[in-house]
Amino acid sequence: MQRYFIDSKQIDYPYIKIIDNDYHHIKTVMRMKKGDKVYACSNNTSYLCVIDDITDTDVVLLIQTELNEQTELPVEVTICQGLVRKEKMEETVDYITELGAYAYMPVIMERSIVKVNNDKRERKNERLQKIAKEAAEQSHRKQVLKVHDIYKWKDMLEESKNYDLCLFAYENADKDALYKDLITKDGIHSILVVIGPEGGISLKEVESLLSYNFIPITLGKRILRTQVAPLYVMSTIGFMLEQ
Amino acid sequence: MQRYFIDSKQIDYPYIKIIDNDYHHIKTVMRMKKGDKVYACSNNTSYLCVIDDITDTDVVLLIQTELNEQTELPVEVTICQGLVRKEKMEETVDYITELGAYAYMPVIMERSIVKVNNDKRERKNERLQKIAKEAAEQSHRKQVLKVHDIYKWKDMLEESKNYDLCLFAYENADKDALYKDLITKDGIHSILVVIGPEGGISLKEVESLLSYNFIPITLGKRILRTQVAPLYVMSTIGFMLEQ
Repeated sequence: MQRYFIDSKQIDYPYIKIIDNDYHHIKTVMRMKKGDKVYACSNNTSYLCVIDDITDTDVVLLIQTELNEQTELPVEVTICQGLVRKEKMEETVDYITELGAYAYMPVIMERSIVKVNNDKRERKNERLQKIAKEAAEQSHRKQVLKVHDIYKWKDMLEESKNYDLCLFAYENADKDALYKDLITKDGIHSILVVIGPEGGISLKEVESLLSYNFIPITLGKRILRTQVAPLYVMSTIGFMLEQ
Repeated sequence: MQRYFIDSKQIDYPYIKIIDNDYHHIKTVMRMKKGDKVYACSNNTSYLCVIDDITDTDVVLLIQTELNEQTELPVEVTICQGLVRKEKMEETVDYITELGAYAYMPVIMERSIVKVNNDKRERKNERLQKIAKEAAEQSHRKQVLKVHDIYKWKDMLEESKNYDLCLFAYENADKDALYKDLITKDGIHSILVVIGPEGGISLKEVESLLSYNFIPITLGKRILRTQVAPLYVMSTIGFMLEQ
């Protein structure tokens, strides 16, 4: 069944008003009719709704029941990736949303070959948010991944102080780094994981990460590309916490 | 450093002869010179080599040392995916190679929307093998993923008898299926994992899988698309066996 993420302002209990793109999607793309059912999600709650009315400007849903599914990970995982090409960012956002990530934070790193274009920056962020919203709907999540604006390296390091656990993927990490013990430790509610761009993390960056208490982890014995590493991280964190 | 997969016939100790595409890659794409170093991999062994000569038809490598890296998973994992569009197959082959899969087996399933085109079949398989080879080189593997020809459902079921453990991803599986205990059990050397196409696995298929002793597993609490599910499976199996 279709899912739509709504703002809590759209709820006027027991009705929900669907507008803009989602209105268009229900009416024109899905060609739904009065009586059809959809899910509406807001603030970690899903509502099973029936279409009550379709007007020229909005769709009115009638809430039938509130659902108590748990599809969110018990910790908030933010993937911080060295700035990469637009297509790779989009793919990463799409996949990590499906795998349960909380946020995506692109950061300018020494070996990022992509340059920041301030003109396109806002539009790029909007597009990433749209991809995250659609992936969240498709994978039955209750929250949409948050896409941060592009961070400078130093700002990211300062920001890292707000996380309970900070990790970075590093092929030269001690193979015995106890990834599992770190993730499942009591009191860990937010995790930040830094993943380098195509060219990897520079030695200078490794040093600064270590000085900010980031812990290096390995992602298995093969070399993973920058678009595959976040998928390994999200799959294995999900696995540790859910299975 | 560049890696090239070679046939054992190319080795004439202490020399290795590089021909065809790899010759072209070394000479024209990478523009390497005599004295440059590369890895050559054959039968699970990596050789660190120095370029001894570049002729008009081949590159001659001189083996300097045999390396004893272990980049292969200790069990052979075959991902069997319901037939999907070419682009999705290519992406899956690319990513699961990097994550350590042993083989990829496309199978015709009830809800596969793609039809088999016998004319293009061989060319498609060749292209998948090429993608697997490049991904293996890039991720420092010693083996190239084996790409099977397209299986019929019944043939796949019969073939499954040759595996130590057969699993299938199923969102309605008992959430307590002990995925971890299954994978890490003693005596498991080969694992077959069936993943449905976009439309999922039909009830009839679930019944036939169960009758062939396949065990259903869940892949976390979110719904994963057919191209993301194999990445979760390979990441988590790798994690269980390597970390």
